[in-house]
Formats: sequence, C-alpha cells, structure tokens
Amino acid sequence: MELLKKVESAIRNEQLAEAGDRIVVAVSGGPDSMALLHVLFLLSGPMRLELVAAHVNHGFRPEESEREADTVAAYAAKLGVPCEIGRYDLPAFIADTGMNPQAAAREKRYSFLFETAVRHGASKIALAHNADDQAETLLMRILRGTGPSGLTGIPMRRTEKKVELIRPLLRIYKSEIERHCAGYGIPVCRDSSNDQRKYFRNAVRLDVIPYLREYNDKLPESLNRLADMMQAEDDWMEAEARKRFAELVEVGRSSERIECSLGATRFATLHVALQRRLIKLILNYVFLDADLSDYARIEAVRSVIVREQGEAISLDLHDRLKLIREYDTVRFVQAWQPPEPYEYFMENPDGLLLLPEAGTELESRLIEAEESSAVPPWGEPNGHLEACFDYDLLHFPLTVRSRQPGDRMEPLGLKGTKKVKDMFIDKKVPPAARGRVPLVLDAAGRIIWIPGVRRSTHATVSETTTRVLVMKVRSV
Amino acid sequence: MELLKKVESAIRNEQLAEAGDRIVVAVSGGPDSMALLHVLFLLSGPMRLELVAAHVNHGFRPEESEREADTVAAYAAKLGVPCEIGRYDLPAFIADTGMNPQAAAREKRYSFLFETAVRHGASKIALAHNADDQAETLLMRILRGTGPSGLTGIPMRRTEKKVELIRPLLRIYKSEIERHCAGYGIPVCRDSSNDQRKYFRNAVRLDVIPYLREYNDKLPESLNRLADMMQAEDDWMEAEARKRFAELVEVGRSSERIECSLGATRFATLHVALQRRLIKLILNYVFLDADLSDYARIEAVRSVIVREQGEAISLDLHDRLKLIREYDTVRFVQAWQPPEPYEYFMENPDGLLLLPEAGTELESRLIEAEESSAVPPWGEPNGHLEACFDYDLLHFPLTVRSRQPGDRMEPLGLKGTKKVKDMFIDKKVPPAARGRVPLVLDAAGRIIWIPGVRRSTHATVSETTTRVLVMKVRSV
Repeated sequence: MELLKKVESAIRNEQLAEAGDRIVVAVSGGPDSMALLHVLFLLSGPMRLELVAAHVNHGFRPEESEREADTVAAYAAKLGVPCEIGRYDLPAFIADTGMNPQAAAREKRYSFLFETAVRHGASKIALAHNADDQAETLLMRILRGTGPSGLTGIPMRRTEKKVELIRPLLRIYKSEIERHCAGYGIPVCRDSSNDQRKYFRNAVRLDVIPYLREYNDKLPESLNRLADMMQAEDDWMEAEARKRFAELVEVGRSSERIECSLGATRFATLHVALQRRLIKLILNYVFLDADLSDYARIEAVRSVIVREQGEAISLDLHDRLKLIREYDTVRFVQAWQPPEPYEYFMENPDGLLLLPEAGTELESRLIEAEESSAVPPWGEPNGHLEACFDYDLLHFPLTVRSRQPGDRMEPLGLKGTKKVKDMFIDKKVPPAARGRVPLVLDAAGRIIWIPGVRRSTHATVSETTTRVLVMKVRSV
Repeated sequence: MELLKKVESAIRNEQLAEAGDRIVVAVSGGPDSMALLHVLFLLSGPMRLELVAAHVNHGFRPEESEREADTVAAYAAKLGVPCEIGRYDLPAFIADTGMNPQAAAREKRYSFLFETAVRHGASKIALAHNADDQAETLLMRILRGTGPSGLTGIPMRRTEKKVELIRPLLRIYKSEIERHCAGYGIPVCRDSSNDQRKYFRNAVRLDVIPYLREYNDKLPESLNRLADMMQAEDDWMEAEARKRFAELVEVGRSSERIECSLGATRFATLHVALQRRLIKLILNYVFLDADLSDYARIEAVRSVIVREQGEAISLDLHDRLKLIREYDTVRFVQAWQPPEPYEYFMENPDGLLLLPEAGTELESRLIEAEESSAVPPWGEPNGHLEACFDYDLLHFPLTVRSRQPGDRMEPLGLKGTKKVKDMFIDKKVPPAARGRVPLVLDAAGRIIWIPGVRRSTHATVSETTTRVLVMKVRSV
C-alpha cells in the first residue's frame, strides 16, 4: 500500500532510522499510532529495526483507558512486538500538583517513553504526529501570535536527553492513515476526549480548520508546505545568527554573574533580521529558560544598540538583567546577590511562619479529615502553593530551609527519588532563584514538599487519614 | 492627537519623505485616505511637503461615485491642497476587455496616480493602507497558501516607474483612523461595495477575522508583528541569495536564448534554504514574468541538482525552458525559434482564418445589432479572446499580422496611443511569445484589436451601430 512506501522513503531520505536501530514506538491506540506501529513492523524486517511498543494508561477515563491498553497490548502481541504499559493515576496526580491535565499527561507520557528507551537501550522514540497535526500546530500558532520560528511547526526529528524523537508520519494526512487502518483491518481506539472543544487544539481541528477550508480546501497542504519552507529558512538563519554570536559576543561568567558584551558599531552593520536573531540568542544565553525574547523587548534592546551614540544608557530588562551601553560597548549583565542559606523549625501543626529570604510566608493548619473533604480550608485549592498531608504519618518538628547540595525527594507520581536540582530545572526555576525556594522536611529528614515545585509521595491523604495538615504558601 | 505623532515618527524613522518632496496623495474619500490627506496636510508645513490630492471616479456606482468625487474635491479645497479628479467609465471598459472588475479598477487607479505624479513632478505617491489591511493581506495569503515571502505582506515603501509608493498609515489600526476622523470632523464616504462578500478581501474582513478573533482578540496585532519580522528576514535572505547568484551563476545570452549555468557540487554545499531561493532567482531570471517558481517545481529542480552524479539528465520545466545536467554542470536553457513574421488579409466580414504561426484561428461573423444584443454570437462572451466592432466604422480588408517595431494602438479606455510593446509588458506576455501574437488592423492601418491583450477605441459598438462584426480567436 501507498502509505508504506511513503513512510519508507521518509525514513530513508530523512535518515530517521538505520539498520540495527532499536526504536520505542509510542502507541496510544488511536489510528495514527496503531498505523505507525503496523508500518514500522512491516519495515522492521527489511530495514532491520527492533521495535518496542510503549503505551501509557493515564487513568483519565477508567474503562476506556483500560480497553485502550488491552487493544494495544493485544495488537503488539499479534505482531510479536514487545509491549510496555505504564499505568498512572493522573487524576490524583493532577489534583495533588494542580497541573494542567494535558501538560500533566504529556509529562507522564514522555517520562515513561524515555524510561522505556533507557530500559531497552533504544536510541529512538517514534511518535505518530501526522500532517494534519502539523497544519493544526501552525494554525494554532498563527492564531495565538507567532514569529518566523513558530511557523516551522513540529520538527521531523529532535534530540532530547540523548534520545532522538522521530516522526515518520509527519507528511502523511489523517485520511490516508485511516484508509491504511481500514485496509489492513488494524484495530483502533477512538479517544472520546478528542471531541472536547475546551482544548484549543481540538477546537482548531473541529471548528476552525473546517471553517477556513470553505475558503481553501487545500489549507492543510498549504500550511504543511509553509512549515517545510520555514524550517529550512529558520534553520539557516539560526545558524547564521550563531556564527555572529561566536564572532561578535564576548561571554564573561563568574559565580555571581553572567555577562555578554558586544560592540555597537559592528552590531549596527548587521542586517536587521540578524540583529533581532542575535539579540534573541543573547537573551536566551544570559537568562536561560526565562522567556524574555518577545518581539517588543527585542526591538527595545535593538533600538538602544543601534541609536547614535549619546549618553550612557542602562535599561532594566528584568529585575536581575540589565542592558548597559557605554560608548561603543553594550553589555547584558545578569547579576544577583547569592542568597543566604536559611533554616526554620515548625514545632506545631498550627501556625504562620515568615520566610523573609524566600519573600513568602507559610501557613499551616490541622483539621479533621471529615472537615477537609467538606470544606477546602482556604477556599479553592491553589495548585502548587497548597498541599495536604496525613498528619499522623509525619514526624514533627518540621524543618523549612533552603536547598542543600545533594538534596533528593521522592516526588508523588514517580517511582524512586529525584534530585531537587533536576526538579528545579524541569520546573524552569531560574538558577538565581533556586537558593530562595523553601523546602519542607519532616523530622525523619524526608523532603515532603517544595512549594511551587512538587510534593512528595510521603504522608499523602487517603481514606484512612483522620487528621489533615494543610499547608499554604503566600508571597509577602 | 496621537495619530499625527505616530505618522510623523513613521515618516521620519522610515524616511518615507523629506523636506521639499512633492507627494501625490491617493484619496478615495473613505476614512483612511481622508485621514491620510488630513495628517499629511498638518505635517506639510513643518516637514515642508507639497501635496497633490488625486481621486479616481471609476463610475461603478454613478451617484455614489459622483458624491465621493465632490466630497474629496471640497475637502481638498478647504485644506488648500490642489486636487486632480480622474473620471473613467469602468463598467464599459470591463465589459469590453473582460477584465476582473477589481483588477481593472486597480489598473486605472494606479495609472492615473502615476500620470498625476508625472504631471506634477511628484516623486512620491502616498497610499492609505492601514494595519488592518496588512492583517487581512497576511490572512488572505495564509488562507490561499503562501511561502515565507508572502508573509511579508504589504511593504511600507516600494519603487515603481521611478516613483516611490509610500504607506504612512501602515502601522495604524482602522479604529484609530476612525477616531481621528471623528475627532477632527473630517468628512468621509462609505463605499457600499466594501460590504460585498463576493470579493475575497471583504469576506476575510467581514467574516473570517471576526470569527478568528473569538480565539485571539489581538490577532491583527499578531499578524502585523509577524509581517514586520518576516519583512526583515525575507529581505536578508533575498540579499544573501542574490550574492550567491552573483558568485555561482554564469549567465549567457544571445538573441535566441538565455542560459544560466552553475556547478552542482558548489550548489550542493549551500544550505537548503539558500538552494531554494537561488533556484527561484534563476527561474525568474531565465523566464521573466512567468510564474514557474512554485514550491513543487523548485523542489524538483533542486533534487536534480543535488542528486549524486549519474547519467546526464534533461528536464522540461516549460515548453521553452529546459534544465540540463551533464556531469557537474547544470544549465537552465530558455530557447525558442525566433518566430517568422506573418501577414494575412481578411477580405470578407464572414470567415475563418487559420494563423499557424500563432497557433490559433480567427473566426469572424457579421450580425445585425439587434441580434447581437439578444443572443451572444458564440455563447458567453469570452473576455479578451472575443471582440465586437461597429462594422460600418471599419475599412476593409482587414490585416492580421505579427507585430512590427514601433507599432502603437489607441487602447479603449486610455487617452492617446500606447506602444504595443508596453502593452505586451503590462499583460506579461513573455518576450519569446510576442512575435507570435496576432494584431488585427483595418485598411486605414489602425490596430483595432490584439486578441488576448487589448482592443482599441476604434469602431466600438454604440446605440447607433446597425451591423456588428464579431471576431473570436481560438487555439488550434
């Protein structure tokens, strides 16, 4: 069938996989991923690929989820492909962390895929995104506002944590995938949440694209072509900007500050398009994950650099990032006072603790389990900034302190422990802020909660809980 | 008021005008152009600009059009700005040429603006496109399918025929323009055809944008930012591609052919984004106006150039354009047989004349005027390929021949004569094809019709016509 040849030539032309590769195939049970599993299975002999199917049961829709897991496992077994099923209680995880459901599901799914890849020594993870997903992504970005880089859409390949994510179906339209499934009698599950318009992507797929196709039935194809062209152009412009960064930008770094500097005169000779991309690279460099690089800010920075020399200028780009221009020298200076370590004790379950180093206060209150389920203690639960514990499973006094090297926690929803540092990175807490974030430990020395970041698996509230300790953090 | 300052700083920052400039201001009478006239008038003193208002009455909506012309003339007089009104009978012109009404109106409008600029020695024409027009343009292009260059939208400035077209309101939103008009009590006309959804732009403005703003109220602003960024990036990429063209492409040219050649190995070292842009430049170079540079064709050409050397390859890109690869040399060869001049005579008003050099046949038939208005002679009138004449105003025999140097015609709807060569250029007839196009002359030596291009002002059918000569051209 047609699809098979297209995927094979995509894999060969784009070098998505080569003989001997072991590939984890992410299979939700929907038509896209079941077709992907089937096609990769057909190619696995001639191309000498080893496959592992991986399915995550999020537990969102108990019966439906269970049926999906069974369908995937049965089909993988039929093909003779080993299959790993990850089971999670996402609703509980979400209730506890206050995370957005789609983001939480995505996090679980990807971490399970990476774990599976590591366990099986796989170098690649195959995902089933198709050309209609690509069109939706572009349209979502156009609707929400995007620059040139956003129009590159979903990449065909991307490396993360030393594993390559590949998308062999990215140029295949949904209709062709459905035909393939029907033609081969591949069992597929229909995820009922795909019809919920509360998710922006679903609204785009179900409403916006059909509406716009009244004006151009080939809109998805047009958007895919645009993404193709933009990918190449963006890639080239980024490479050129990185060259200029290496040539023009001097980087200084100490334990207290990172600084990038460059000469205004030389900068001004660059094309304005390169000026913008170079500023973006510098802002990303000096401020890591923080998203400072919106268009308005880039233009503000650019106008300071290219203006005719006048008085020295200093511009605050953020509370810890300054742009300083003196004569021809422009400096981006990220500086902070390294925070002082701190430590406080909580002897009693009821109280209010001021944490001046963190700029917050921590309130805690002991209530009966009955009461806790009936009336949320402080109005609506407030996501990461509030947490409940089984009081009788905690050892008092509690300690509230800043992080220490080597800190680890057992996060709720993950097996085993995780470095606190890695959790800060995952949560995109800027390095300069990490020393201020409070950690809550019980007398057994276990980190039970990092407000705003993650809670631990310890002392979770269950049916047997009689007394609930509710803690809440607030800025002061 | 705010608008005034914004326009002033746009003019200064983008150097749209300088002291002493004489500027033709295109004024339709709508809020945008009336505000533009008003703002430029306010700036004309301090910035030392000389203004001429220019208005075109297309005669589409007789009473409304007349009222608009009066409003513009009166307001210009009130400001003390000289005003030129061009009057055309567009409905007649369209009926005769079969042109699309919007394209016809645009052609008339621009030619009047350029004529006015020449007559007044003006170096600039100011147009009133605003930021909402820009958003509409981007969205129209996205909907119809576009590449990166299309996302640059409407340019702030553009030079044509040695006159610079400037758009001082391009970053101002309609709502602000309306407020300006209301605040200053500027008289404005409302063009009722702006509500007709049969024009794609109107449908986008009236239906699509309001629909999409349900998802992001700031969509117009997002699209404008995207256009800004894309303009800079596109400009830079084009400049880089032109550099590579100068470095890598050798151009050969004779009276019979144009040829571009380049080395495949060096081409293959370029980034794919540059490869695509370079191919586009070459295709535009060897084939002038013909739009050969769609994405699929560019990719086909690219794959021939970058493939591992095998056998010699020849690919027809068009009936007169070949891509030839031999070893490392890739040639784009445009070749044609210079067409032989030809000349035929038509003694009788009824007949069929075969024009082998043109690849067409010309059928002519004489009918009563009564009959002609009742039943179109060959079904629906067929635009440029069919024309009607007042038989009694023509001198027989007619001559049908290929063009000769110095040929001029009096085109219907224009005053005076125009070079046939210029009409070919306007109509984008490729140079290689021009020698084959038939010209129809009457015995007085007047060119009465160029099928597919333009008809003359001679022997038009009027109320006094009794016998109609209908001529039609068909490919054979």
